Amino acid sequence: MSTQNLTLLTDLYELTMMQGYFETQENENVVFDVFFRHNPDAGGYSVMAGLEQVIEYIKNLHFSYEDVEYLRGLGIFSEDFLHYLSGFHFSGNIYAIEEGTVIFPKEPLVKVIAPIMEAQLVETAILNIINHQSLIATKASRVVFAAQGDGIMEFGLRRAQGPDAGLYGARAAIIGGCVGTSNVLAGKLFNVPVMGTHAHSWIMSFKDEYTAFKEYARLYPNACTLLVDTYDTLKSGVPNAIRVFQEMRDEGIKPKSYGIRLDSGDLAYLSKQARIMLDEAGFTDAVIAASNDLDELLIHDLKIQGAAITSWGVGTNMITSKDCPSFGGVYKMAAIQGPGGEFIPKIKISENVEKITNPGNKTIYRVYDRATGKIRADLICFADEIYDTDQELLLFDPHATWKKTRLSGGTYTMREMLKPIFIHGECIYKSPTVKEIAAYCTKEKNTLWEETKRLFNPHRVYVDLSQKLYDTKTKLLNDMSKQANS
Amino acid sequence: MSTQNLTLLTDLYELTMMQGYFETQENENVVFDVFFRHNPDAGGYSVMAGLEQVIEYIKNLHFSYEDVEYLRGLGIFSEDFLHYLSGFHFSGNIYAIEEGTVIFPKEPLVKVIAPIMEAQLVETAILNIINHQSLIATKASRVVFAAQGDGIMEFGLRRAQGPDAGLYGARAAIIGGCVGTSNVLAGKLFNVPVMGTHAHSWIMSFKDEYTAFKEYARLYPNACTLLVDTYDTLKSGVPNAIRVFQEMRDEGIKPKSYGIRLDSGDLAYLSKQARIMLDEAGFTDAVIAASNDLDELLIHDLKIQGAAITSWGVGTNMITSKDCPSFGGVYKMAAIQGPGGEFIPKIKISENVEKITNPGNKTIYRVYDRATGKIRADLICFADEIYDTDQELLLFDPHATWKKTRLSGGTYTMREMLKPIFIHGECIYKSPTVKEIAAYCTKEKNTLWEETKRLFNPHRVYVDLSQKLYDTKTKLLNDMSKQANS
Repeated sequence: MSTQNLTLLTDLYELTMMQGYFETQENENVVFDVFFRHNPDAGGYSVMAGLEQVIEYIKNLHFSYEDVEYLRGLGIFSEDFLHYLSGFHFSGNIYAIEEGTVIFPKEPLVKVIAPIMEAQLVETAILNIINHQSLIATKASRVVFAAQGDGIMEFGLRRAQGPDAGLYGARAAIIGGCVGTSNVLAGKLFNVPVMGTHAHSWIMSFKDEYTAFKEYARLYPNACTLLVDTYDTLKSGVPNAIRVFQEMRDEGIKPKSYGIRLDSGDLAYLSKQARIMLDEAGFTDAVIAASNDLDELLIHDLKIQGAAITSWGVGTNMITSKDCPSFGGVYKMAAIQGPGGEFIPKIKISENVEKITNPGNKTIYRVYDRATGKIRADLICFADEIYDTDQELLLFDPHATWKKTRLSGGTYTMREMLKPIFIHGECIYKSPTVKEIAAYCTKEKNTLWEETKRLFNPHRVYVDLSQKLYDTKTKLLNDMSKQANS
Repeated sequence: MSTQNLTLLTDLYELTMMQGYFETQENENVVFDVFFRHNPDAGGYSVMAGLEQVIEYIKNLHFSYEDVEYLRGLGIFSEDFLHYLSGFHFSGNIYAIEEGTVIFPKEPLVKVIAPIMEAQLVETAILNIINHQSLIATKASRVVFAAQGDGIMEFGLRRAQGPDAGLYGARAAIIGGCVGTSNVLAGKLFNVPVMGTHAHSWIMSFKDEYTAFKEYARLYPNACTLLVDTYDTLKSGVPNAIRVFQEMRDEGIKPKSYGIRLDSGDLAYLSKQARIMLDEAGFTDAVIAASNDLDELLIHDLKIQGAAITSWGVGTNMITSKDCPSFGGVYKMAAIQGPGGEFIPKIKISENVEKITNPGNKTIYRVYDRATGKIRADLICFADEIYDTDQELLLFDPHATWKKTRLSGGTYTMREMLKPIFIHGECIYKSPTVKEIAAYCTKEKNTLWEETKRLFNPHRVYVDLSQKLYDTKTKLLNDMSKQANS
């Protein structure tokens, strides 16, 4: 992705609409919001990811000569418009929530304020990138939670939906809390730990399992994890591994990390039996790692059953977010800038109340309990609203307005979540490293109540509207209703 | 993907195993097979895709100076091995089933015969590419089947798992039978039709819906599909669309293609009502297109309910293969070449009988009924077995050997499915264009019985083993069992 020009990575209708705006409109500034409607897997929160790649995309945005030639060949674009495209660059403002932040449905994750032609073009790629990486970071975060402090290794490249899905999925998985990835390219590009053991083919290429283990231990004495299920885990694999560990000990070799990996069979039973065998042989510090179609639910259950596994390789189900393989982020127009510079709120109505958008040029304040540092609620408001945390704050549920919470002045803190990323087309933000984002994400998860992190039926974090935003939205809906019935 | 060096797009363990082979083995030729165990979505067949990208990957395979520097920095590779990597190129043979072919579980889709170090390295990327594209081509084929001849447009880029998933997913969707994609970059790179209408933001950027439609029709009179659900589909959207169509007619404009798109609400009800309204206004040839979280099951049901939709835009659920987001292809060692050039069959056993591999250097013959051209069975056999279609052919189920089928000589034809792609590292195969592959795939699907194409509980196509392969496999299993019990 880093070297390919992604400018044409867009839906055709973005370009036909652009030409439409070119022909019919003043190219006025508009506000578009990226937001999502539900946390994946019915979880209590999601994790923002992908901003660095959005920034790269916006910076590189230009139509090459070949791009324009291709579009000309479609026979639907005018020469004037193609000429405009050949000089195109992004000149607008982008605000976004930083990567690694915990996020909730309905709130703007990315806000684009730009001339309508530019704002329209960037819809598809921004959604593609944010949807993908936030999905995998969120899934990884769930898997890491289920493992209760054990390390999770990302092993999914071979089952990812194409090269980028493996590469940026690995990036997102590290953000979500994985300790490393098998993906060497991800390790190189993002400077994150790469990990791995060996495959069944290693065992099969030697005359017997013992010899295969012995050679592996000789070559990699410091990270010696032996895959024990090629022939028979408890009758052959574990005994051969113990024999090799014993020989290493006899030779005075003290590996930094060593142990076995289970990749089939019942992981609860096999791990407990293997633990007994290893302990009896005096290898109490040998690590038992496991893989094989794991996800957060299976790890959760294996933990409950007392599986003696402390290191987990998770592939397919995490890299594809198997039970929920799309994040569902959308990109909706929220306002048009009027001639006087003011933002005129716009709303998209729907028969489904959940799908009605929040109008206007907005921001989000996250409200924390001052004593615990935990999140009380997120408050979506107009970008120019000002709050004084010494004053009482009244929060109310926008779908059940009688549900009110009053926070006394001094008992809460507020933090604005949308950060300026591009101003007048210039990037003013420097992305942290992936390791820094991962460390920040861990802190972010500490701002969640335990009830919100639970895998099943978690407590919902409230995302409320300011009184002013609520009133504006209600008025727009009433006006539309009157118009429709007249 | 086309410009990025994907050599490091591999699991770390491929490289540590390579170094292990470098240190301990003769780098003898081995045979690895790519195969899968189950058709996605419990379907009756799958569609092979991704070979062109595998070829690109193999051709470009080399470790750049930066790649070697990165690996050196990991501190686990010897200078001798890094030196070997810096001169690495693929020198082996690859055989594969052509893209667009219908394929079935257990049979080798790709066969790599190469020195073990080379064969090991390419595992991850080959699986990544074939797994992804075959998954989406298969899903698209199901969606196309459900639509009973209506056109399916691929609209999923914004929800795809990263840029490549959108790009190569679009390619695979076209192979599976979609008539076009919204993805402009896919259109450019693969020379496939690009399609689209407009978004709600187009409507919202004008003073009212009628004006928005009117301007769109003026700009795109030849492909004028109007999105009618921004405010109220039947009260506002359809009447405004009819007004614009009427004005076009009054002005003597005859659009090549025109109609409406529904994107929310109950598509069966709304499409039938809209059809009545359009017909009553004299627009019987106006197309009704639909989108909104469609998949093959919903399209199947909408068809049963008589929805008046003849054009379908399918996004998220197809581009992610939502109900089954991974193909599950694996890469297993099947043989090692002995000093005399003979292939010594290898087998990977497992407690799960389904997971036991087929040993040896194999190929596949597809057996067709001569009269109908339909597939009778696939026969996996050793690569050097020869068949005479004038003779009787005995087929038997390898899991229930008493189930036998005798085909009389002259009543069947046979076709070898694995084609040579690389020989001694040289590519000797030229990929067809995506359009050619899509046309071939349509013919391929005609070789399936209707019972196999069914979405629910389809009839299974038999994949049998030759007597010689069955005997070899049984002997290997018996030998292993004896060894384990001794």
